[in-house]
Amino acid sequence: MALMQLTIIPMGTGEPGVGDYVLAIQKKLEEKGAVFRLSDMGTLIEGEPKYLLHLAASIYEVPFEQGAVRVVTQISIDDRRDKDVHIGDKIISVIRRDP
Amino acid sequence: MALMQLTIIPMGTGEPGVGDYVLAIQKKLEEKGAVFRLSDMGTLIEGEPKYLLHLAASIYEVPFEQGAVRVVTQISIDDRRDKDVHIGDKIISVIRRDP
Amino acid sequence: MALMQLTIIPMGTGEPGVGDYVLAIQKKLEEKGAVFRLSDMGTLIEGEPKYLLHLAASIYEVPFEQGAVRVVTQISIDDRRDKDVHIGDKIISVIRRDP
Amino acid sequence: MALMQLTIIPMGTGEPGVGDYVLAIQKKLEEKGAVFRLSDMGTLIEGEPKYLLHLAASIYEVPFEQGAVRVVTQISIDDRRDKDVHIGDKIISVIRRDP
Repeated sequence: MALMQLTIIPMGTGEPGVGDYVLAIQKKLEEKGAVFRLSDMGTLIEGEPKYLLHLAASIYEVPFEQGAVRVVTQISIDDRRDKDVHIGDKIISVIRRDP
Repeated sequence: MALMQLTIIPMGTGEPGVGDYVLAIQKKLEEKGAVFRLSDMGTLIEGEPKYLLHLAASIYEVPFEQGAVRVVTQISIDDRRDKDVHIGDKIISVIRRDP
Repeated sequence: MALMQLTIIPMGTGEPGVGDYVLAIQKKLEEKGAVFRLSDMGTLIEGEPKYLLHLAASIYEVPFEQGAVRVVTQISIDDRRDKDVHIGDKIISVIRRDP
Repeated sequence: MALMQLTIIPMGTGEPGVGDYVLAIQKKLEEKGAVFRLSDMGTLIEGEPKYLLHLAASIYEVPFEQGAVRVVTQISIDDRRDKDVHIGDKIISVIRRDP
């Protein structure tokens, strides 16, 4: 199990806000039954790496369908094979360590 | 006001976990009175951009002090001048939009 | 046509160098006939976005096969639909603009 | 000595191209005597980490001065203390390894 952070940056849209783009992606993720959490700098999604990359590919066109002509799509996958990871685990792990 | 995501990736440490590094950074941020939130893929911090870059510089050596010989430090600052932004705002903005 | 920057960060390997990992990925990209250029901070690859995401998925396991137990894989795709982009274009575009 | 990749993504500008922003940053880096190389996905700069973070702070306002109201500024610093690194080193290192 791995964690993916997906960040979508539409460019040249004429207005600085991107809430509609984030909402469209969120709806698509819900439709697909993904386990995800919105963050201020992207969307966190958990799953097997093959699934995560496939999911990223399946929502890739969403911001273009919303009207963007240029999009920077950033994917960061943290994948460790020595133990299972889920959204929220790291925060709990750090709290437990703190005396 | 801007938002910064700070991600520290120690390399060549001999073990895959990084919880001790994250904890050391968290303590430093607390000492400095920073407004931050841990996420699974980094730490979110809010403030003026000059302050954020100065803060990043002031904690930069922490993972090396913890013993790392190579560290990839990633900083992403989302800075908009047309309105004030705070940690958690984007999530609220997307929820409000959702009918 | 879009550009992808692929960065592979193996963690917990016990040594700070990653040249063997980069080489293994490079060989895989050559086998697959990809148009790419090594950079100090990752590998640049050009192509249609669907192809790029598929390519990223097809080489994703390489660092784990090399022995890493934890890997941060970062993908950044810059995709514009108003004109064709290729590796090296941006540098030429900036030089032309410079009086 | 470390390497920094600096990527500037102006948002809401009304046009997808960013060549003028890249050029303005390049001029500022030249004025400051920085050792850098343009890449398709950002600008590579070499130097001591304190210098690099200070340099990033000193050019941070450039895209706002060019008219952007929202900018995502991304900094990635690869810093290893076991040996000196310079722009172009990694590519040479991988070529030497390749039989």
